[in-house]
Amino acid sequence: MPYEVRAVAHVVGGRSAVVDDGWGPVRATLVLAPEVPAEALVGLTEFSHVEVVALADRASDVPPAPWRRRPRGHPAWPEVGIFAQRNKDRPNRLLVSVAALVRVTTHAIEVEGLDLVEGTPILDIKPVFAWSGPRGPLRTARWSDELGAAYY
Amino acid sequence: MPYEVRAVAHVVGGRSAVVDDGWGPVRATLVLAPEVPAEALVGLTEFSHVEVVALADRASDVPPAPWRRRPRGHPAWPEVGIFAQRNKDRPNRLLVSVAALVRVTTHAIEVEGLDLVEGTPILDIKPVFAWSGPRGPLRTARWSDELGAAYY
Repeated sequence: MPYEVRAVAHVVGGRSAVVDDGWGPVRATLVLAPEVPAEALVGLTEFSHVEVVALADRASDVPPAPWRRRPRGHPAWPEVGIFAQRNKDRPNRLLVSVAALVRVTTHAIEVEGLDLVEGTPILDIKPVFAWSGPRGPLRTARWSDELGAAYY
Repeated sequence: MPYEVRAVAHVVGGRSAVVDDGWGPVRATLVLAPEVPAEALVGLTEFSHVEVVALADRASDVPPAPWRRRPRGHPAWPEVGIFAQRNKDRPNRLLVSVAALVRVTTHAIEVEGLDLVEGTPILDIKPVFAWSGPRGPLRTARWSDELGAAYY
């Protein structure tokens, strides 16, 4: 059964080209949709980071994109399933990105290090809690550590 | 403009009642939808944690739920906007939860500490990378730390 979701905000500013690396210093603004009242942001300045759920509207769904591929097509990295990577060409094209909160204005928030291009529809904004991340020691695939070396 | 999203998996087992706290030891299985091939999970065992995007199908969208409320209606906590809390009654009803990966089977994954009730549609599964969380020191609202005390 399909579900309908809608943009609650859009990315304004930042990068307009989809590039792989160097997202750390990029600043952008999430401008709330007209029907979202400013009170939806009350209290957000108490948090240093936001978690953003976005729809990668310029990416490919799966299918037609493959269920399994080498991340970035890199020959040194293994062919892994789409649920073992964070690649934007994925079922439902949903992205989850964490960014630093710079400033909250009346109807927008300014963020730093958000890896989403200008115009991307934002489906949700959540604060990062002290306890919303992984609990217990983290183990990750080496290819993912290598991929992250120049990402932010 | 609305977008259509679909379940790629469902929560099987775990809790069937929506309760606030004590999610840490709960084990559940994410069973892939029939049209999702097993190869989508290849390589996932190299990661200790998964990030799950779910649709809280028993929650309320906003509106009719309010744009601003006290978390859990707790009188000691401030009234904050929906984008400053992780409450399930939210625009698009999208939840992002991190859980420990216990086991990958042919067409399912077993997880521990996933705060989603049985039957919840899963829209995406991503590995937690070493660098996909917040970068730089984390600052959080005190009410959110208090709320987390018994959550997991």
